[in-house]
Amino acid sequence: MSMKLYELAGADSNRRFSPYCWRVKYAIAHKGITPETDFIRFTEKSAIAHSGSPTVPVIDDGDTSVSDSFEIAKYLDEAYPDAPKLMGSDVAIGQARLIESWANTQIMAVIFRMIILDIFEGLDEGDKEYFRETREKRVGSKLEEFQKYDDEQIQTLFNNLTPVRMMLKTQPFLSGDTPGYADYILMGCFMFARASSTKKFLKDDDSVNEWYENMLDMYDGLGRKVKVS
Amino acid sequence: MSMKLYELAGADSNRRFSPYCWRVKYAIAHKGITPETDFIRFTEKSAIAHSGSPTVPVIDDGDTSVSDSFEIAKYLDEAYPDAPKLMGSDVAIGQARLIESWANTQIMAVIFRMIILDIFEGLDEGDKEYFRETREKRVGSKLEEFQKYDDEQIQTLFNNLTPVRMMLKTQPFLSGDTPGYADYILMGCFMFARASSTKKFLKDDDSVNEWYENMLDMYDGLGRKVKVS
Repeated sequence: MSMKLYELAGADSNRRFSPYCWRVKYAIAHKGITPETDFIRFTEKSAIAHSGSPTVPVIDDGDTSVSDSFEIAKYLDEAYPDAPKLMGSDVAIGQARLIESWANTQIMAVIFRMIILDIFEGLDEGDKEYFRETREKRVGSKLEEFQKYDDEQIQTLFNNLTPVRMMLKTQPFLSGDTPGYADYILMGCFMFARASSTKKFLKDDDSVNEWYENMLDMYDGLGRKVKVS
Repeated sequence: MSMKLYELAGADSNRRFSPYCWRVKYAIAHKGITPETDFIRFTEKSAIAHSGSPTVPVIDDGDTSVSDSFEIAKYLDEAYPDAPKLMGSDVAIGQARLIESWANTQIMAVIFRMIILDIFEGLDEGDKEYFRETREKRVGSKLEEFQKYDDEQIQTLFNNLTPVRMMLKTQPFLSGDTPGYADYILMGCFMFARASSTKKFLKDDDSVNEWYENMLDMYDGLGRKVKVS
């Protein structure tokens, strides 16, 4: 039975920039599955109407539709228990929730300010007004004023990645000796930048950059194939 | 066979302020064990000479000595597999390393600046010179200048606890539905403050404070018994 993953896309339908979808994309690859993919836009969601979810990621696995990146990760461990574990225990699921909250608030939020205009400019024309309106309301200012891409913002990201840098002294992945869902949580944040923008967000000599390069190579270069020009 | 835990103490030998020792203290309680305890001072470590480790925590479990808080947590899961798990899987151990790095750099370091003089003042006279010299070298300034306890520092701690606050919307503990080693990692940081100082470090209306109060109650009020006056 084939699996289908629904993602968010920009004007160019290859511009798949959702960090949550990337978490799932890596999680599916972790299970050794190559899904068929389809996409929606912010304002054209008919492809996922059947799922009952208003947002992607959504997966169809045979007759089962699952939405929400974290729920999909849990589902994949339950449905494919013989493939390598993403989390694999209640304690690991609990801890991954903390790591998700950390990544969303300390990493993704910092990256978002770096690339908000790049995301906007890559959107389908039909999505631009919706995106500007909802995001300007959320952040409380014009997109143009909210965007911040400078040495200070790169330093903030570097500082907020300190826990990862420290951890990399004792183990190669956020999940230990091999990658797991915690790694894909962080990688989703980085793919959010990579799939939206040509901007550099990590410093070259940062050990986190080595981790990122490793992750890009995984699963036949799943992340590396994405290149915004 | 009885277990013995060696901790760090101040002038008052009941002043057990090491955050790493508190992590282990909670981890041992999690396994349903009540250890005998003994203490060392920074400059008087003969009690742990047999372990080969220059620092506490050290546990003696029968003929086995184990040092380093994280190693002790792993040991307890291996030696007591039938008691509730602290981590319980390679993925959870890996993720806990990230959570440890996060807690040490984003939480413990912020608390340390709040209480460094309280720690100093509570030390045994024989430890004071050693502490001042090593810590002033580490932080690059006089203890008196390094200490920062004000609304801004309390706000920094509040901000750095954002991931925990977000996570608490979906689950009651850092390890999921029940506490585990990730919870004790954070609790160790808070006990570091509680066992050294009367200073308030959390805001009353912070949901993290509710978690802290719950943790204080656990294991017959293990943390609540500590009160600096």
